[in-house]
Amino acid sequence: MRLRGRKGIRENLEAQPELVVLEPEQYKGRWAELFGNDRPIYVELGMGKGRFISGTSVRNPEANFIGIDMYDELVRRASEKARAAWSELGHETPPSLMLARANVEKLEDIFAPGELERIYLNFSDPWPKKKHARRRLTHPRFLEMYKRVLNTDGQIHFKTDSETLFEFSLNSFADSGLQMTNISLNLHRDGINEEHVMTEYEHKFMGKGMNIHRCEVVIGERALERYDEIRMEPYRISPDERAALAAEEAEELLQVSASEKSESED
Amino acid sequence: MRLRGRKGIRENLEAQPELVVLEPEQYKGRWAELFGNDRPIYVELGMGKGRFISGTSVRNPEANFIGIDMYDELVRRASEKARAAWSELGHETPPSLMLARANVEKLEDIFAPGELERIYLNFSDPWPKKKHARRRLTHPRFLEMYKRVLNTDGQIHFKTDSETLFEFSLNSFADSGLQMTNISLNLHRDGINEEHVMTEYEHKFMGKGMNIHRCEVVIGERALERYDEIRMEPYRISPDERAALAAEEAEELLQVSASEKSESED
Repeated sequence: MRLRGRKGIRENLEAQPELVVLEPEQYKGRWAELFGNDRPIYVELGMGKGRFISGTSVRNPEANFIGIDMYDELVRRASEKARAAWSELGHETPPSLMLARANVEKLEDIFAPGELERIYLNFSDPWPKKKHARRRLTHPRFLEMYKRVLNTDGQIHFKTDSETLFEFSLNSFADSGLQMTNISLNLHRDGINEEHVMTEYEHKFMGKGMNIHRCEVVIGERALERYDEIRMEPYRISPDERAALAAEEAEELLQVSASEKSESED
Repeated sequence: MRLRGRKGIRENLEAQPELVVLEPEQYKGRWAELFGNDRPIYVELGMGKGRFISGTSVRNPEANFIGIDMYDELVRRASEKARAAWSELGHETPPSLMLARANVEKLEDIFAPGELERIYLNFSDPWPKKKHARRRLTHPRFLEMYKRVLNTDGQIHFKTDSETLFEFSLNSFADSGLQMTNISLNLHRDGINEEHVMTEYEHKFMGKGMNIHRCEVVIGERALERYDEIRMEPYRISPDERAALAAEEAEELLQVSASEKSESED
């Protein structure tokens, strides 16, 4: 039974080559050819059931997307989700999305140097035991691989509900000398951002009081040049706010001065 | 009454010039002279009631310490705490600790370039309103000042219970191009480290389930050369752990291979 079920899944995947790539190694260096255009390629490593990659691809027609997972059953479920998401826009087959069955360990067998522009890591397995640290997708050994397959505009967008994985990842990014930005320890602190596509996990855990942590890593040379544009500047204040602050400070100074005056008259 | 009380405090501070410095500007560039030796100088900005700086100075006789706060009453309380901490070691006056009344805004009037080796920021005021962001002690404008007064071994050690201040600070460090390390999102996750001197706030908030966040910023050139020694390497595993992991992976491979074999025989 178990094997027949598995074969059914494989047949299902084989039946939709326009969406599912079972042997992604054969497209190494030729993904632009497969998509039929030169748009930047964004890849999600560990797409799970594909909610994020489907929603994100629909919202961003200016890029091509590839969702990767190593389990047939997840790729099958993601293929259903992808078709459903794109059918709302009248597409039977997603025009800018492919789903690849692959192990992230083999990333450099699938993509040529500089072939990708963005890597999404969403709710990756935290591998909480220290001895499994090498399996975490933000371990320095993976970061080295990511650096090689990313292009000069390359970035990593990382999101997790795991405090320990986030902590590990921040240290790993820092130790690897990578430029982080837009670090958030509680992504939905001020309510849900409508622009923001949630993953299955995120949707499930939201409202349970679990913090979602997020950060971006700016890697490509050209991306680093645009750093000031990429970062959200958590300390930037508007001219109005600055004026209000100045007025408040002037008020405080007046009070201090009055208090000193009364003290010297004492 | 209020004024008399305030004057009493001032007189108290004036009466202990061997511990309290009321006009720190006059020692700019001459702190080593005041301490009478060339040990590195570690400064806590905003020492509050002085628990941390007292305990830390007692435990680290190899360095000189300066605690800074802008309020007379806090400096007075810190002076009591400092004397109490050092009296246990038989010192009526702490030999390697000074308490200075000063505003951090004036930091560069108090210290010459490169005069400090470490800056501690413990539970600084989070100034949660965005319009007050400039007052946060990890705002880029303060970081620029810190960079100038720190020497080539210079580091910042930062600790807070405020999620929003920590988030702001990580972004501020990253945006300022500073090298972070030993980032912790929950300092006491694995129990209390005995080596670690807690501040009043930390002691109070511990056990209430509040996370303490901490990180180090490595600034000085020579400190950056020692980076690998400074960082704790959250992903380093022992040879034993590596052997156990390898064995586990071999076992998994055997299972996969057996399952593939049974599948092909199906």
